[in-house]
Amino acid sequence: METKAYANHAADQAFVPYIFDRRDPGPEDVAIDIKYCGICHSDIHTARSEWGPAQYPCVPGHEIVGIVRDVGSNVTRFKAGDKVGVGCLVDSCRTCPSCEEGLENYCENGFTGTYNSTDRHGGYTKGGYSNFIVTDQRFVLSIPENLDLAATAPLLCAGITTFSPLKHVGLKKGDKLGVLGLGGLGHMAVKLGASFGAEVTVLSRSAHKQADAESLGAHRFVLSTNENAVAEHANYFDYIIDTVSAPHDLGQAFGMIKREGTLIMVGASDKPLDLNVFPMILKRRKMLGSLIGGLPETQEMLDHCGRHNITADIELIDPERINEAFDRTVKSDVKYRFVIDCQKF
Amino acid sequence: METKAYANHAADQAFVPYIFDRRDPGPEDVAIDIKYCGICHSDIHTARSEWGPAQYPCVPGHEIVGIVRDVGSNVTRFKAGDKVGVGCLVDSCRTCPSCEEGLENYCENGFTGTYNSTDRHGGYTKGGYSNFIVTDQRFVLSIPENLDLAATAPLLCAGITTFSPLKHVGLKKGDKLGVLGLGGLGHMAVKLGASFGAEVTVLSRSAHKQADAESLGAHRFVLSTNENAVAEHANYFDYIIDTVSAPHDLGQAFGMIKREGTLIMVGASDKPLDLNVFPMILKRRKMLGSLIGGLPETQEMLDHCGRHNITADIELIDPERINEAFDRTVKSDVKYRFVIDCQKF
Repeated sequence: METKAYANHAADQAFVPYIFDRRDPGPEDVAIDIKYCGICHSDIHTARSEWGPAQYPCVPGHEIVGIVRDVGSNVTRFKAGDKVGVGCLVDSCRTCPSCEEGLENYCENGFTGTYNSTDRHGGYTKGGYSNFIVTDQRFVLSIPENLDLAATAPLLCAGITTFSPLKHVGLKKGDKLGVLGLGGLGHMAVKLGASFGAEVTVLSRSAHKQADAESLGAHRFVLSTNENAVAEHANYFDYIIDTVSAPHDLGQAFGMIKREGTLIMVGASDKPLDLNVFPMILKRRKMLGSLIGGLPETQEMLDHCGRHNITADIELIDPERINEAFDRTVKSDVKYRFVIDCQKF
Repeated sequence: METKAYANHAADQAFVPYIFDRRDPGPEDVAIDIKYCGICHSDIHTARSEWGPAQYPCVPGHEIVGIVRDVGSNVTRFKAGDKVGVGCLVDSCRTCPSCEEGLENYCENGFTGTYNSTDRHGGYTKGGYSNFIVTDQRFVLSIPENLDLAATAPLLCAGITTFSPLKHVGLKKGDKLGVLGLGGLGHMAVKLGASFGAEVTVLSRSAHKQADAESLGAHRFVLSTNENAVAEHANYFDYIIDTVSAPHDLGQAFGMIKREGTLIMVGASDKPLDLNVFPMILKRRKMLGSLIGGLPETQEMLDHCGRHNITADIELIDPERINEAFDRTVKSDVKYRFVIDCQKF
């Protein structure tokens, strides 16, 4: 099935139009006309071979929303015309304990990423910077009718990445949640945290982000370069969700967390962070890593967002602006997620 | 009250005999003839001003056991002749939420350490490298009758430091516990972990420690320099308790922990550790810090050790060998704790 896409052909090359064939849909498959796809920082790391050598041509994109074109004979959950999404994974072993629990994101045999992963149908996977995709029904999600489709795309990665650990730790009404970093992940953490009833505080080094934080639904703002403000928040938070991917000071964050509180790590720095263990030890504090989410909890997140009318704040672009969007994303010059209009491929 | 002790008078000086006065016991106090005191690595860090400038003369020692000489008029829990212990703290604010929960070790106004802390009775505290101590009854512990007194001393720090987090995470029969490092803390973690019914595996870079590990009650041994052995234990442990105080590779330990398992940090490196967050994120793993224990759980630990007949493996020394013992402790040349015979002061 002919698919129009954008790809880069080497780590240091720009994205250019690219046409390839998707597999014909099998009985378990859903064929999807892609409408929109978000640009995640992971796309950039992968396409530029910053997380190890990528396979080229590289078609990134794992924040995919679209409309079902057709379904295979065994597909009962979806029909042509449905609004659907595909996130970070398109396959997994389905037999390990994690898969059996619906935590395919922690598949013990390794899940198949939506792009740049070995595809059991042959070759390697290509993602959502394209106008069409064929995905096994287990890895397809329903999009609530009331949500704007373009602004829903980033929920498939930025949304579930922040929703999953907040749910896992049991975030509840009245809990004090700090959000470290206000980018793609951070702005979703603010919206989702507030929707759980938590008191949300943005922690940022940039004073100019205060107004934005409040407009996103944050109740409070702490300028992390202001030592007095930081000191006033010693032992304040039940949880801080750390969305910063660059190396940064974990000690300051730990100091603001209560006894037995948790620092949730979702921003994956590719350089090691300096960890001073004393702030953890002195207050029996915890640190928790979390990676996207399984399919059932991704559906739960979408349904939650439907009920609370939560989507991402996006800047919609045509495909030819992907290169510019990459450069601006690296500079954090986006509020808060670029989304590609895949109808323009 | 005249007290005979050993102290050093500057960071780079040896320990020498030293005589000073303890306060007269008040109505809440227990006056204790110290029989034995363990040598903890913290004593060395403090006496050598490695954790910031110490106050001199410095009398360390917070693994104290002895016999009650006399009690104040309000003391009901103890009487002359009782076997008692004093651990790492001798006072706290008693009014903060942590103190009210019996977690005086996490006192929000700062607990009073058994040595080198500001003493609300004046001056600074002096510890168990001495023959006599006066301690508020809240901070005095009962020693089970069946335990060897000298070998019980290290339970007051090394014992509670490992018991508290194992209890806190809910270690239970059949859980797989890794013990990283086989020193003072590690050997207690092996004994305590086994007493909880866990399958205990010692992880060590030294092959010659295998026999010792087994004689302490470990069920298994992994040589951490053997890549195959480490690979065979990928995702194996429910918990690893990390007792190593020198900088070391956390990534290897994380890789051996199951999805959602916990790396428990009790070895406090004074240098930052390199933390690669990917191994935490990829399996939703956790890290937990823990600091000694509160008074109720320290008593619970001692009672548990009484029931299971657990004490430390010790080398008993006379006071004049403190300097030699410090040097050997730094070189890890002790199985597994030096204990000073305080009747020889």
